[in-house]
Amino acid sequence: MKPYAVGVDLGGTNLKGALVDREEGLLERTQYATEADQGPEHVVDRIGAIAEEMVAAAPNSSVAGVGIGAPGAVNWNRTTVSRPPNFPGWETINLQSVLQSRLDRDLPVIVENDANVAGLGSAFYGTGQRSDSFIMVTLGTGVGGAIIYQNKIFRGSTGGAAEIGHMTIDYEGPFANSGVSGAIEGYLGQEFLAQHARDRLVNYPDSAVHDLVDGDLEQITPRTLYEAANQEDELAREVLEWAGHKLGCVLGSAVNLLDIRTIVVGGGVSAAGDYILEPARAVLPRFVVPGLRENLRILREELGNEVSLLGAARLAFEGEQAQVGSR
Amino acid sequence: MKPYAVGVDLGGTNLKGALVDREEGLLERTQYATEADQGPEHVVDRIGAIAEEMVAAAPNSSVAGVGIGAPGAVNWNRTTVSRPPNFPGWETINLQSVLQSRLDRDLPVIVENDANVAGLGSAFYGTGQRSDSFIMVTLGTGVGGAIIYQNKIFRGSTGGAAEIGHMTIDYEGPFANSGVSGAIEGYLGQEFLAQHARDRLVNYPDSAVHDLVDGDLEQITPRTLYEAANQEDELAREVLEWAGHKLGCVLGSAVNLLDIRTIVVGGGVSAAGDYILEPARAVLPRFVVPGLRENLRILREELGNEVSLLGAARLAFEGEQAQVGSR
Repeated sequence: MKPYAVGVDLGGTNLKGALVDREEGLLERTQYATEADQGPEHVVDRIGAIAEEMVAAAPNSSVAGVGIGAPGAVNWNRTTVSRPPNFPGWETINLQSVLQSRLDRDLPVIVENDANVAGLGSAFYGTGQRSDSFIMVTLGTGVGGAIIYQNKIFRGSTGGAAEIGHMTIDYEGPFANSGVSGAIEGYLGQEFLAQHARDRLVNYPDSAVHDLVDGDLEQITPRTLYEAANQEDELAREVLEWAGHKLGCVLGSAVNLLDIRTIVVGGGVSAAGDYILEPARAVLPRFVVPGLRENLRILREELGNEVSLLGAARLAFEGEQAQVGSR
Repeated sequence: MKPYAVGVDLGGTNLKGALVDREEGLLERTQYATEADQGPEHVVDRIGAIAEEMVAAAPNSSVAGVGIGAPGAVNWNRTTVSRPPNFPGWETINLQSVLQSRLDRDLPVIVENDANVAGLGSAFYGTGQRSDSFIMVTLGTGVGGAIIYQNKIFRGSTGGAAEIGHMTIDYEGPFANSGVSGAIEGYLGQEFLAQHARDRLVNYPDSAVHDLVDGDLEQITPRTLYEAANQEDELAREVLEWAGHKLGCVLGSAVNLLDIRTIVVGGGVSAAGDYILEPARAVLPRFVVPGLRENLRILREELGNEVSLLGAARLAFEGEQAQVGSR
């Protein structure tokens, strides 16, 4: 088996690439601006360039393949990306065929949903190594998810499983962007959480949050709340506790359905750390049927965003194993 | 491969057994009273007797094995049953070893959770044949579930997956028996639903339900509501619509997590048929992220309770295939 693979993480703002050693993890990394506003052809060209750069960084014939984590919908065959949010003009593009013709027809190219890729990276290089099955929750602009079951991505019927962000915790609750009432993304999505903090801040004119954003409340992020909470700010702690409680509720439903007891939380909002995870841990068992309450744990992804690049590369290592296995 | 298997369905009231033909389905069936109040040894003896009777009904050496669907928790190895509800004094019993020593040491005995068994039966003999992956919901005393993924039971980490009845749809909702606030079982479990109907009936003194139970409201069952609904009774239709709406909400969360778009509904409450399923169908897409809304369908299990016996026998057919495959 070849020792290296290239991982690409396609984000709305940044395009990241890495050369990954199967055992050691990240060897080299690079980053381009995505420039999504210049249209899909331009972005695909840049994906090709970053993949080329990383393939070239490894000795000849030592690269198992290129894995790409992408937003939007990825098809069952892991070749196309459809309508990624914030990529104007992008309908459905077969990234595999475009990249294979550019790079080398024999170099496998595998595309996967970005949340699933983060889960796979965590499973093999991150906090997810601690369990062969876990639920990954990515708290960022939206709330993404991945189900890793027996060290593989659980993909559902069409490759679209683990949409935890759209699970409801209150059928008459506020609507998230997806049109789902009480969807957890409507509480924990970065903008929803910031808006909740702004509204609640009215009751706390002396909160440290005001100073941290120089009075510009539009600047509130989970990081602001974390910093304020570290200063024992009551508002910030209340907001994060409120958010953590909601997270625990939805994770209870996920545990009931999957009987997977380890949860790994990543993404920007997880920067708020235990301020959000402790209340989630406290409430989780109360939303799980008693027979499944043992060994529940909510862990923070310790590798941070690196899991995305590592997981993308891992796609290529797995593809190689699958080929070997099918011979 | 042997043509027959024996299926046993262990219920709190009735113990059922069947001889099943791999292709044709049920050949013979029998039923004993469970007599759970006489203690676990007595019940295990009766399970042995019913299995013996059905094995004896087939020609010598033509039976692949005995499968048993049981309430309570079944271990990962599918050998033991722990603390089934309504079985006084039953802690953990290894049904496999007891039955194998009674029947024939070479006859495989496989135990599985009753909801999973119903799902497996539906997958190979019932409505579930229409999809290789589906979510089975059993609306009975409680709300049970099974996940059939690529024609196999999805068992989770310990064999306890698919506890749909304990997923919440309202984190501040009423508590079900499991202590989970807003768990769907607290709306749709048979007793909860009947109580809801009784409370709501106060507003409908002329409802046909009064006559159907001769004024004894404790006798209300889903069947009563179905019969009243057939008489265009407003109360009954309202209650079933209310219940169907809640069912649609929780199924939305399950679809989001699993990306499995076919749902098969069985169990006693499903006797209310489309009065409950139509509102569930109407609301379901509104609780699913737009990317997963195509091809959603909620089907009623057409075989009824037979799926439990068929699924139990199927366990033995699958065990045989697994043995062959591993040689």
